[in-house]
Amino acid sequence: MRDVAIIGVGMAKWGELWEKSLRQIFVETALNALDDAGVDRLDAMYVGSMSSGLFVGQEHLGSLLADYLGQKALPAARVESACASGGLALRLGFIDVASGMNDVVMVAGVEKMTDLNPNEATYALGTAADQEYEGYHGITFPGLYALIARAHMERYGTTRKQLAMVAVKNHENGALNPLAQFPFKISLEAVLNSPLVADPLRVLDCSPITDGAAAVILAPVELAKKLQKPVVKIIGSGHATDSIALAQRKDITWLESTYQAAKKALAMAGKKIEDVNLFEVHDCFTIAEICVIEALGLVEKGKGGQAVEAGLTRVDGRFPVNPSGGLKAKGHPVGATGVAQAVEIVKQLRGEAGPRQVKGARIGLTQNMGGTGGSSVVHVLAAE
Amino acid sequence: MRDVAIIGVGMAKWGELWEKSLRQIFVETALNALDDAGVDRLDAMYVGSMSSGLFVGQEHLGSLLADYLGQKALPAARVESACASGGLALRLGFIDVASGMNDVVMVAGVEKMTDLNPNEATYALGTAADQEYEGYHGITFPGLYALIARAHMERYGTTRKQLAMVAVKNHENGALNPLAQFPFKISLEAVLNSPLVADPLRVLDCSPITDGAAAVILAPVELAKKLQKPVVKIIGSGHATDSIALAQRKDITWLESTYQAAKKALAMAGKKIEDVNLFEVHDCFTIAEICVIEALGLVEKGKGGQAVEAGLTRVDGRFPVNPSGGLKAKGHPVGATGVAQAVEIVKQLRGEAGPRQVKGARIGLTQNMGGTGGSSVVHVLAAE
Repeated sequence: MRDVAIIGVGMAKWGELWEKSLRQIFVETALNALDDAGVDRLDAMYVGSMSSGLFVGQEHLGSLLADYLGQKALPAARVESACASGGLALRLGFIDVASGMNDVVMVAGVEKMTDLNPNEATYALGTAADQEYEGYHGITFPGLYALIARAHMERYGTTRKQLAMVAVKNHENGALNPLAQFPFKISLEAVLNSPLVADPLRVLDCSPITDGAAAVILAPVELAKKLQKPVVKIIGSGHATDSIALAQRKDITWLESTYQAAKKALAMAGKKIEDVNLFEVHDCFTIAEICVIEALGLVEKGKGGQAVEAGLTRVDGRFPVNPSGGLKAKGHPVGATGVAQAVEIVKQLRGEAGPRQVKGARIGLTQNMGGTGGSSVVHVLAAE
Repeated sequence: MRDVAIIGVGMAKWGELWEKSLRQIFVETALNALDDAGVDRLDAMYVGSMSSGLFVGQEHLGSLLADYLGQKALPAARVESACASGGLALRLGFIDVASGMNDVVMVAGVEKMTDLNPNEATYALGTAADQEYEGYHGITFPGLYALIARAHMERYGTTRKQLAMVAVKNHENGALNPLAQFPFKISLEAVLNSPLVADPLRVLDCSPITDGAAAVILAPVELAKKLQKPVVKIIGSGHATDSIALAQRKDITWLESTYQAAKKALAMAGKKIEDVNLFEVHDCFTIAEICVIEALGLVEKGKGGQAVEAGLTRVDGRFPVNPSGGLKAKGHPVGATGVAQAVEIVKQLRGEAGPRQVKGARIGLTQNMGGTGGSSVVHVLAAE
């Protein structure tokens, strides 16, 4: 397998983009990535999208988006793993370049979610859970993550305040990210007093409904070295699944798919988790970030809440988590999220992250998750 | 890149499977493939499904199906390229094994289409077209292919009878395939007198709505040689897109994506089209098979109808096309079709196709297509 680099990254403003269609959102972002890479050639494309069929009535995104990018005939594949669709697209693009099949490969993620009303969007997102059991019994994602949160609080003494502090931290970071959907700080009191969604989770524990896209361009490292930008390599990739239904898990507070995917990615990279300088992880709900940092091994099982409270995961902490603002503040256009995580890590490793720059960042990790952890994709990126 | 073989194939009866859910249909077929391969280990899985979100309200099939196959933690990816989703899954599985990332990889396709009523299914299938233009103006796939058929008749003198003969031939073949949805012959008169759907296409010009799955298992050729079965290699893979909307094409009777994908696959295989002994192609409508054999170069542009009438594509003709019965008689569970094409070619190359065996078959080709040719995936398979 060949060594693979990310030679270009692209994003545009995320939010409720009423005036733009899915194809416009994608093209704007894809052109940003091509511009950043300084290449005018693509050999293949992978697009992550969770449910363009339900959100905008459009499947066959490979054909549509290659066409609208002016890249007719391009081999373009749409891939899906619920909210980990972007991470999966990155992994399949990585395998493609590593295999030698293609040299310059675009990996994009896109979701246009606000064309549906909130009830319809909740149904569409619910298709990431086990519809014949979980969906049939009426539970949706806030409810599923509320079960996880309640169990974590009971078992480990995690507090309501610790959950809230995840959101406060991510908004602090997001306030420095001009492309974020919510680029502003929120107070602890605001989170604790926001409307209850599914006990114990409140509105400000939840990531939002977002329209947006993200794109990166991959190439063999030899090609990357001929370009002008600092070289950022993908040194590890891991992917794992778990029972789709929460009720089938031995321990609903433990994200086994994240643990397995991280183990594989770090083994491929030849690194330990302590070697990693910053993390972009899947904080779809505040409790998710706490479970993720435990599964990644940043802290012992059950200690995630305390670690957040102690500042471990702040930009100036030992393990900075979600310097971009995370899903909570940056937004969560589900298929785009996993790719956007890589965009942030590349900017950080290049030293281009401006006021939210993590000092001395050389190695970064992305963790993208589908459903309640039915699938996870982890990548390790390193500055050359 | 490593050489890749197909070491196992699986299918079960296709049709209107009211009593089975999507996950049951998949598991039954996947177990058939594991049994055929004689392996008890999988390193990864690719699942092609066009629109499980719209058809059964379930995305995240990688997690769900790995779980129900008893393969928890398996890296499992769902991929989509409309009706070419199965062919795309085969291509991405091929790249994965060729890259050295994984050794034993299942590639499956599945669609459960009959849970929707016909109007809803027509809408779901329409998401393979350009929804903002084609869908918005009310055209569905029978109408789009009718436009192609009418243009082909006007320009090249293709006759109504020649279209019908595609269906008659494919049902002759399908009558010998016990897993087909419609394993019986139909007469020329039956096609010509069947109800009009979209002039000039009639009901018996159209492939049906089907529930079904198909699976193959890939491995490096060195591993395949240690097993008991004849070795069948994937020697070429090609993938291309085209404008998703028919109105954007220079010539609506020409399938440029099929032409491009076949060119790449044959170049990788080091073969000419004349070297290929049999073909499984995408006859979603009778006119499609005529356009496909032209784009593949089996006949000159415009001569497809005449070639069918002359018997060129019969099982005993120079270029046997769709010995399995094709989409028309075997059925068309959209995400499964591309994988089922490979299942048939493997059976033929092993000499296991029974009464529909193509004599002396050594090299076979699959052509799987999304929409009206917005994407095409072509594979060349060869007996060792």
